[in-house]
Amino acid sequence: MQPADLDVRIDAARFDAWIAEFAALTEPGSGPGVTRLAYTPLERSAHAAFAAFMSDLGLIVWTDAAGNTIAEHPGTEPGLAAVGTGSHLDSVPAAGAFDGIAGVVASMVVAEAIVRTGTTHRRPIRFVAFASEEGARFGQACLGSRIAAGLTGPDDLHRLRDADGISVAAAMTGLGLDAAAAGDARWDADDWAAFVELHIEQGSVLHAEDVPVGVVDVISGSTRLELTLTGTAAHSGGMPMHLRRDALCAAAEIVLDLEALACDDEHDGTRITVGRLDVSPGSITTIPGRATLTVDIRDVETLRQRRTADAVLSRAARIAERRGVGLQSRAMAETLPEELSPQIRSALIDVCRDAGVEPRVLPSGASHDTQMIGTVCPVGMLFVPSRNGGVSHAPEEHSDSDDLRRGAELLAAALLRLDAQL
Amino acid sequence: MQPADLDVRIDAARFDAWIAEFAALTEPGSGPGVTRLAYTPLERSAHAAFAAFMSDLGLIVWTDAAGNTIAEHPGTEPGLAAVGTGSHLDSVPAAGAFDGIAGVVASMVVAEAIVRTGTTHRRPIRFVAFASEEGARFGQACLGSRIAAGLTGPDDLHRLRDADGISVAAAMTGLGLDAAAAGDARWDADDWAAFVELHIEQGSVLHAEDVPVGVVDVISGSTRLELTLTGTAAHSGGMPMHLRRDALCAAAEIVLDLEALACDDEHDGTRITVGRLDVSPGSITTIPGRATLTVDIRDVETLRQRRTADAVLSRAARIAERRGVGLQSRAMAETLPEELSPQIRSALIDVCRDAGVEPRVLPSGASHDTQMIGTVCPVGMLFVPSRNGGVSHAPEEHSDSDDLRRGAELLAAALLRLDAQL
Repeated sequence: MQPADLDVRIDAARFDAWIAEFAALTEPGSGPGVTRLAYTPLERSAHAAFAAFMSDLGLIVWTDAAGNTIAEHPGTEPGLAAVGTGSHLDSVPAAGAFDGIAGVVASMVVAEAIVRTGTTHRRPIRFVAFASEEGARFGQACLGSRIAAGLTGPDDLHRLRDADGISVAAAMTGLGLDAAAAGDARWDADDWAAFVELHIEQGSVLHAEDVPVGVVDVISGSTRLELTLTGTAAHSGGMPMHLRRDALCAAAEIVLDLEALACDDEHDGTRITVGRLDVSPGSITTIPGRATLTVDIRDVETLRQRRTADAVLSRAARIAERRGVGLQSRAMAETLPEELSPQIRSALIDVCRDAGVEPRVLPSGASHDTQMIGTVCPVGMLFVPSRNGGVSHAPEEHSDSDDLRRGAELLAAALLRLDAQL
Repeated sequence: MQPADLDVRIDAARFDAWIAEFAALTEPGSGPGVTRLAYTPLERSAHAAFAAFMSDLGLIVWTDAAGNTIAEHPGTEPGLAAVGTGSHLDSVPAAGAFDGIAGVVASMVVAEAIVRTGTTHRRPIRFVAFASEEGARFGQACLGSRIAAGLTGPDDLHRLRDADGISVAAAMTGLGLDAAAAGDARWDADDWAAFVELHIEQGSVLHAEDVPVGVVDVISGSTRLELTLTGTAAHSGGMPMHLRRDALCAAAEIVLDLEALACDDEHDGTRITVGRLDVSPGSITTIPGRATLTVDIRDVETLRQRRTADAVLSRAARIAERRGVGLQSRAMAETLPEELSPQIRSALIDVCRDAGVEPRVLPSGASHDTQMIGTVCPVGMLFVPSRNGGVSHAPEEHSDSDDLRRGAELLAAALLRLDAQL
């Protein structure tokens, strides 16, 4: 006999409807895909929709100083630490509709199913929409969960700025949030027994191996650098090739060198991406005098991640020096790889197997809020397959309804299993 | 005995004052350097200052349908074709204070000296401020002089657009100019005997060889292409290196390949520049799905320029194909190399020698209005040295007062010599 936890059934159409509703909350005129950046009024609108839904279900709902929205379904035994689930509602520019949102919608349909079926549990179950997971705006990912984990405080919130020079703290103030009170949003380890996040894979392993669900063993770390190359802007016709100090040529050489570094034999599993490259003055007839690029280094091994970041800097410096171009580098953010709780992992695997599904255990290339929450309590992650070749952070991002439904059912089962077991 | 033409003396301080006055007409908040783009109210303000000065001197001043401003000092013998000089008043973004402006200020101080000294001449002398020489805004250089030469008409003015999608014609209309009447601005070959432009070198040949003046024999042509690479935007952590279709990596490989092409043994004198590179979506954590770059190919040989443009396209296509990235290319503009009139060149060399200066005969890497006017009448160019390593199209662009003064004196002498000789 299977435990009662498998009785929570999810309606796939309901899941799809919520995905579409959140996708409609996008910056007007921002083009294809969803643009709902960290700490913007649009992100708050999505949180308000989440809060209203949970409140209508009868859950206790609150928003903390960081802008994280938490909904609690009480347990039957007072004083026990909670089990939680959730993800984030913000997006990168021109994003897809599933990254983060899938996990929040899963928490909504799971809460709904629990309330509808009158399912009871010993511990409080908390459903969380984290604020500002994407690092696209401020360079630092997982701000809401970092604040909840006590990893980011008011000083960082004043220091981190977006491309327009607006600090996180200022953006928060504009939304009625209080950076100075960030400490109040910190989670108490005694109050949390476990946390499980459902997320789309954002890669193509599950699709390629035709497996409908993944259980994450380790989340990649990410080191983010900004490199600024300073050459000499000059007339494209007047300046002979051999006298140039072309900042873009230096940047191009660095882009290709880092690609080669990530692809060499010692870096299986390392991912290096130059996602931004700004060229100045940006005129057809002017040799670029300045180029600024970002480097995102992901790794599942801490030592290799740090060695790779060092290698990026020394290789860039060598290229810049050979070309007579100045190089300035700035460390934007660092998150180290995080091995998730073996106990939670094994519970998740059991739940999948009990439902007749053999999960794929795999690392996460992307960072996630769960990585931060892992410093508060034992954590785990379920992945549902990404289709369209695993594309994510792009409008073509897609996951199938049926995979999302199954994922939400496994999540419900896992929360109830952990409630019973822990 | 030298002819009277050498008696025109220029005041270097007066020259500097005008350079500073025009430099102050820059887009507010545009940062260091001068930003006074083609067909903008600021460019018109500069033309208005030129017109007012010439009008105050007593010259006949008019602005044609293209926005070129022309000031005429009448000759003593009716019915003769004019000799002319001039340059342009617009700039690239974040430009220096001398490109184009030096030639216009030279025409102003020469006109002033002629009026002050009561110097007479047989032919009308016309002083011209061309509109919109820089291709930075609309991709096509020398718009004002192209219209004057009948090389660009209303159709082109409706087709060419800036980055905001504004056509040249629409920009002109907003300034009270009339694209539909562009034909009226066309110069009549019978009305022009010769045209000489003074310009800064925008390179470092004169400085390196310690020569105070250059005489141009050929003006480089320029072929401008826009290449758009379309890969797949994807999550920087989720997508493994070997499954990526990174548009920026493809663009970087093209940038370096074109640099190598311009530096090989067959391309001595060819200059290839990628001045713009826009990456989309431009997020730290997203593999670039699209990259758009401009290629400016300059050459002093027509056949080689065209062969090089073909090579750029085929090499870019090969790189894109190997990387599984889409490539679209667009020809933005083409101007072929122009050998300037041997007769005018020889007159300019004589004038320099008579003043005790041995000029350097050299090609121009940059294109100039004079290239267009060369299809109307015999033309020539004088170069004054660029300092600071020949930097141009950048705030560091600099020419020395004394070089500019000497250049203007030689220009005055040349105009009077041509008036007498032709």
